[in-house]
Amino acid sequence: MKYPKIPLAQTVIQLCKAKSIKHIIISPGSRNAPLTIGFTNNPYFKCYSIVDERCAAFFALGIAQQLQEPTALVCTSGSALLNYYPAVAEAFYSDIPLIVLSADRPKHLIGIGDGQTINQQNIFENHILYSANLKLDLDEEIEVEEELPIFKNLENKLEKLLGLKQGIQDYNETEINKAVNIAFSKMGPVHINIPFDEPLYDRIDEPTVNPTTVSVEKQELKIETNILNECIRDWNAASKKMVLVGVSRPNSIEQKWLDVLAKDDSVLVFTETTSNLHHNNFFPSIDKIIAPLKDEDFKSLQPDIILTFGGLIVSKKIKAFLRKYKPQQHWHIDVKKANDTFFSLNRFIQSSPNQFLSKFLPEIQSKKSDYKKIWSSVKETRAYKHANYLSKIDFTDLKAFEIILKAIPNNTVLQLGNSSTVRYAQLFDLNKTLDVFCNRGTSGIDGSTSTAIGCAVANDKQTTLISGDLSFIYDSNALWNSYIPNNFRIIIINNQGGGIFRILPGHKNTKNFDTYFETKHQLTAKYLCKMYGFEYNYVSNESGLKNNFNSFYSLSQKPKLLEIFTPKNLNDEVLLQYFKSIS
Amino acid sequence: MKYPKIPLAQTVIQLCKAKSIKHIIISPGSRNAPLTIGFTNNPYFKCYSIVDERCAAFFALGIAQQLQEPTALVCTSGSALLNYYPAVAEAFYSDIPLIVLSADRPKHLIGIGDGQTINQQNIFENHILYSANLKLDLDEEIEVEEELPIFKNLENKLEKLLGLKQGIQDYNETEINKAVNIAFSKMGPVHINIPFDEPLYDRIDEPTVNPTTVSVEKQELKIETNILNECIRDWNAASKKMVLVGVSRPNSIEQKWLDVLAKDDSVLVFTETTSNLHHNNFFPSIDKIIAPLKDEDFKSLQPDIILTFGGLIVSKKIKAFLRKYKPQQHWHIDVKKANDTFFSLNRFIQSSPNQFLSKFLPEIQSKKSDYKKIWSSVKETRAYKHANYLSKIDFTDLKAFEIILKAIPNNTVLQLGNSSTVRYAQLFDLNKTLDVFCNRGTSGIDGSTSTAIGCAVANDKQTTLISGDLSFIYDSNALWNSYIPNNFRIIIINNQGGGIFRILPGHKNTKNFDTYFETKHQLTAKYLCKMYGFEYNYVSNESGLKNNFNSFYSLSQKPKLLEIFTPKNLNDEVLLQYFKSIS
Repeated sequence: MKYPKIPLAQTVIQLCKAKSIKHIIISPGSRNAPLTIGFTNNPYFKCYSIVDERCAAFFALGIAQQLQEPTALVCTSGSALLNYYPAVAEAFYSDIPLIVLSADRPKHLIGIGDGQTINQQNIFENHILYSANLKLDLDEEIEVEEELPIFKNLENKLEKLLGLKQGIQDYNETEINKAVNIAFSKMGPVHINIPFDEPLYDRIDEPTVNPTTVSVEKQELKIETNILNECIRDWNAASKKMVLVGVSRPNSIEQKWLDVLAKDDSVLVFTETTSNLHHNNFFPSIDKIIAPLKDEDFKSLQPDIILTFGGLIVSKKIKAFLRKYKPQQHWHIDVKKANDTFFSLNRFIQSSPNQFLSKFLPEIQSKKSDYKKIWSSVKETRAYKHANYLSKIDFTDLKAFEIILKAIPNNTVLQLGNSSTVRYAQLFDLNKTLDVFCNRGTSGIDGSTSTAIGCAVANDKQTTLISGDLSFIYDSNALWNSYIPNNFRIIIINNQGGGIFRILPGHKNTKNFDTYFETKHQLTAKYLCKMYGFEYNYVSNESGLKNNFNSFYSLSQKPKLLEIFTPKNLNDEVLLQYFKSIS
Repeated sequence: MKYPKIPLAQTVIQLCKAKSIKHIIISPGSRNAPLTIGFTNNPYFKCYSIVDERCAAFFALGIAQQLQEPTALVCTSGSALLNYYPAVAEAFYSDIPLIVLSADRPKHLIGIGDGQTINQQNIFENHILYSANLKLDLDEEIEVEEELPIFKNLENKLEKLLGLKQGIQDYNETEINKAVNIAFSKMGPVHINIPFDEPLYDRIDEPTVNPTTVSVEKQELKIETNILNECIRDWNAASKKMVLVGVSRPNSIEQKWLDVLAKDDSVLVFTETTSNLHHNNFFPSIDKIIAPLKDEDFKSLQPDIILTFGGLIVSKKIKAFLRKYKPQQHWHIDVKKANDTFFSLNRFIQSSPNQFLSKFLPEIQSKKSDYKKIWSSVKETRAYKHANYLSKIDFTDLKAFEIILKAIPNNTVLQLGNSSTVRYAQLFDLNKTLDVFCNRGTSGIDGSTSTAIGCAVANDKQTTLISGDLSFIYDSNALWNSYIPNNFRIIIINNQGGGIFRILPGHKNTKNFDTYFETKHQLTAKYLCKMYGFEYNYVSNESGLKNNFNSFYSLSQKPKLLEIFTPKNLNDEVLLQYFKSIS
């Protein structure tokens, strides 16, 4: 086996291996050659080569999102690193572990006008769990030496320098261990900046360092008994309790706890599409319930206690509702953090939701209440009107989503693009066998395709991405990727611009609106598919779409993309009318 | 005329106008609607809509690079802003004025789990001249109020609040003035973060605020007489002086000073391709001179004094030479900063190069020396051998550059991509009528096409971009731009991967090298041209290339792209052999 000659590169690579970081996403460069040589020559690692660092980072995020373990990104010095930032921020807010390994110039070559050289240290400061700034021994030796008293003789000096060298190796090992351990324990992005001096390409047959691995300290999260008892007391006393679940991994809550919640008459469980929670008694497609409500309905819906878990909430309507009709109490259950989303958070219970529910629910008495009964009846009415309305409408975004969401095969993964896509999906009761994901950390349109491809690579299940046209073109370099499985599927809803802006209170159908808000265009995905080897089909009506799904999911020698053209001038009207018609 | 109802948006827009910021590059979003409404409804501004913020920022940079005045970028909240970072860093190191206007949520909606919300304040900290974090009155009122003693009565309170409101308006005006003035005076990127609360889309017919404009203080740069005298003394005493010029704007030095330098026998003027300086007695294509040198030659070339001006130096060979054979003195002339590129900088003379030369050169005595004579003879030999070698070689990157650089029309603008492209160009004596630009601030491959398009939009002269294949695909979203002039031309040298890696000391022609260093591919620009409406042609041999130029620069209804396929396995051999053959 070959190793990079530079000890610091060996150290990074050995510690990654010791900590079971397996997936390494490398962007080409010269400064990072020691890492590239080391990772790619070691069969332990599964390496990927992706040129555009923005895509590389979202691809790594997609893998980490599925595996729930850190993936590592390797890039050269300079602006390469900056292109990681959108995905780093997404990882920060979505609690996805990423380890950014950036090669850097040695300190004495920074700020003197060398090429591909920027100020890399702490570059992600606002959105990173830890920044380790490793040291290159020579630089630091000189610096430290200058601070020391003059040595009496050369022997003393050499001894001292050897000591310093060991000190720097120890420092680097400690920092790498710390950064990687934080990525594991706090589940988020960390940055390790690694200076390398030339020569960068030398290899050796045996490693020359043997770094020490420090294990991740497992944090034992214990729910304090008095807190638990207070929760139980308040919960049992309240007759209107709402559980609201945001982004959650599939199967993160045991079914028996879901069943307990589902049969309690005083509890409404509102689940977002991204929550991956299902029960016939729950309330998915939240907006469908809330959109038509009026003041007195809101008062009736206003819970005494709201219990939340999972990540960020997509539905703007439920946020607006709960901010105006504040619950008396808001408890959030999470291992890491609690957002005061409704300005009424009074308890952050640091625990996994499943752990909390397993302690909490056995102590709960089912409370007599007509809370669920009333709202279940609303839910039924909405479902009926929803079906009725959908049966009558023209082919539009809304109709397309109805057809698509029924056509996605059971037991597969669904990745949703941001903006319109995830919001449309929230209006439908989703197939319960799907695992649903969406980059809701920053809710950006910038990396959904790359994330979905990372997901498709990491997951045995088939992955489908549904994306809007702007989001897809934004991340078109995602397709510049040699690892896309043939069963990967992309569905583009092409409404010739940012359809979401038609629903916002702008001034539609003016040239100004078309250009600066909707950003109207006539592009299609056809040529990108030709360029990157996707099988391409398009449809623009209902029967075409329905027919297409017969073959869309058949086995293929290439990944496939289906582009659905919808009428942009009709989409918003049909959607706005939808909310009226379900009331 | 329509104005946004929000006073803070009016303030930003009015101050931009007062300061003659004309070009506004807007990416679509909702949070930035107040700015979009204001800028696009005011005929003073020339607005552009670009969806991908990474491209938008480089496009803005291309405009600012040409006009030498700030352009403004407008984006929504969240990860949109992060996509500006590569261009912001390029602007920072290339001294190009950019004003980033990012819409943000109000403070009370940050960190509570809302969508498209990140920590935007000071996000570019490592690479920005100034970050202004504007305040939204309501938030700040509450905060400040809490710190004040309780008011005796409501009237007092209202009065105090009105005062606070005015205080916040004053604060914001001051911060905007300061940021914009710094962009002008220090020529670089600044960031203004602007919180907006809903409603965002309201318009009014008359502005409700009238912000105060603070003028830019012009810094008078005076060269101290004693410094100047010391320079004159040392210069006159030295018999080997070298002038090395990096990235400079065309026509930034008066011809008469160039003539003075050119006729001095003790002075060698080394000019990089990006220096836009020309004289028959100067030494362009530096690597051609230096590459074949041996120890004794370097000693003979080693200057007593090196005087540098302009931006970053491309040639690695001259940097390595001067770091090893250090001059006794290194003076750098610049209005802003001096890099200690050769670890021997002893004078930073803060002045424009032209101003310094106009004071300095009249006092200089031409020194008898054989310095120039010796090296002019070397230059002649190299030129002869260069021509001889070029006449014999197969069609490769090197040959293609010879043909291309001769074919570019006089009096046009040439934008060079990074990595191989700019390095190949440095081997040729360029057409003196061309204006040459290259993003050498961070030397990234990430935004050259977008920059070139911005340049083409801002400049009356025709613009040609020469780019490598990886760099072109990296920035392929650059073509997603409705403003590209029909006379814009792109020339892609497609050597099926990162050709530069073949010249570096890697381990060529292994699968590992192909995948992780060269990142071999078989993509072409053909489908991107179809998608984005470019006329496309390709060639793969010498006669094809020569013939193609007959029509390539003819008038057209579309911009054009010419893709040149070169044999990747031959390119590096021909280049390495070139350096041997010219010695």
